[in-house]
Amino acid sequence: MNLIMIFPDEVTSNNSVQLTDERAKHIRTVLRAQPGKTLRIGLLNGPLGIGMVEKTLDESVMLSCAWEAAPPPRPAIDLLLAMPRPKVLKRLWAQFAALGVGRIILTNAEKVERFYFDTHVLDPDFYNARLVEGLQQARDTLLPEVRIVRKLKPFIEDELDGVFPRSGKRIIADPSGTQTVFQALVARDAPLEADCVGAQRFAAQGQSERVMLVVGPEGGWTPAELELFKAHGFEVFGMGPRILRTDTACIALLSQLSLCFSLE
Amino acid sequence: MNLIMIFPDEVTSNNSVQLTDERAKHIRTVLRAQPGKTLRIGLLNGPLGIGMVEKTLDESVMLSCAWEAAPPPRPAIDLLLAMPRPKVLKRLWAQFAALGVGRIILTNAEKVERFYFDTHVLDPDFYNARLVEGLQQARDTLLPEVRIVRKLKPFIEDELDGVFPRSGKRIIADPSGTQTVFQALVARDAPLEADCVGAQRFAAQGQSERVMLVVGPEGGWTPAELELFKAHGFEVFGMGPRILRTDTACIALLSQLSLCFSLE
Repeated sequence: MNLIMIFPDEVTSNNSVQLTDERAKHIRTVLRAQPGKTLRIGLLNGPLGIGMVEKTLDESVMLSCAWEAAPPPRPAIDLLLAMPRPKVLKRLWAQFAALGVGRIILTNAEKVERFYFDTHVLDPDFYNARLVEGLQQARDTLLPEVRIVRKLKPFIEDELDGVFPRSGKRIIADPSGTQTVFQALVARDAPLEADCVGAQRFAAQGQSERVMLVVGPEGGWTPAELELFKAHGFEVFGMGPRILRTDTACIALLSQLSLCFSLE
Repeated sequence: MNLIMIFPDEVTSNNSVQLTDERAKHIRTVLRAQPGKTLRIGLLNGPLGIGMVEKTLDESVMLSCAWEAAPPPRPAIDLLLAMPRPKVLKRLWAQFAALGVGRIILTNAEKVERFYFDTHVLDPDFYNARLVEGLQQARDTLLPEVRIVRKLKPFIEDELDGVFPRSGKRIIADPSGTQTVFQALVARDAPLEADCVGAQRFAAQGQSERVMLVVGPEGGWTPAELELFKAHGFEVFGMGPRILRTDTACIALLSQLSLCFSLE
């Protein structure tokens, strides 16, 4: 825990918080914080801040909170992911929040088993707890939005433009892709200067431009699905010849994208 | 399993193989391969190839093998990692092999608990099985070399130059790093053209140049350890403000590095 997450309804009018759960235990037993000690805190969907330990009792910790002026920026990446096996998704929630995504859309696909959707792993109480865990790891406060899409085609055809602006970058990872993620990010605007120079130009635009990253199921998208994405402005790219498990691939792709955002 | 791994001592003089274990079961029940069907195979530490199913019996499968002329290239990245918690390392072995590393060196460090080394996860039978699993996922055949280093300082001072040439790129990920992995790769040769142009130049050199990537323990390196690495030619870089778990960080860093190798 690199940050103690505070929930808005826990904060009193004089900006103090009384914690009694795992967070209090962590502060007392792992951080061994005595009164006067300051801790990194965050307000869920709000600013980061500093909490000073006012007093510790047997089971509880009282903090006084000082907040930064503004919340951290929302991560510029939205992820549209074919629903993975529940066991895999269970491990991924915290990773998504730690790596930084603005929105997670889980969708059905031809090669996704229907029963994958019948799982407690899609229960908001379950995934929100995991997302908060990832935010606390990465020192962020913005809970990714989660959406479950049962039918891919109508979502892409009728809803996508409302959810994700046409002006944003739409990219889809697929083994058939021959360009890198860099090239995909600049392909439509500047096909000739693709790759490095274009990526620099992309980064120079700052985080104003959002990226939607699409990742397929273990068995891949069908040709028809891939065409559907292409017809709606998604640029295909690959990660080379090595085939990765969905969970590894998600982390790898988000990391490569975040590198594109940090180029100077 | 995107490739069936064959072990050298299983191949008869006329290039046939009889499988009876999990691989035979996978071929019969998951791939449902009938005689005449061809499968992707690989010879451990040797070439990729094609196996044709000659016959299937109740428990066994007989393949005739045709091999490519040369083994795939050894991944250009060596990883030096402070020994993680055994539970974390257990999950990482297959990922390392899937992402592609030439060598994995696990080392002690000030903030590594000594008991981490008392684990079956460091037993060669255990980790080689996991590494083969990762190779089968990624369609590679070259088993990463594994080495356990109990004392970091004498290893860096006395042995490193023999294990990893001074001409290679040495980089270390640390939260104190302000440059990207791109910049770190070219920092010594071309400090002024760092980042994108330099990275392109790096990629243009091809895979002839090896990279050693150093990743620290959950609690980080001590200042003295960091100085030791710097004094031996390691360039410090970071991944931005988000703090990742060791397992996520390893996957993220290896993915960013592989992107650097694939730039045009």
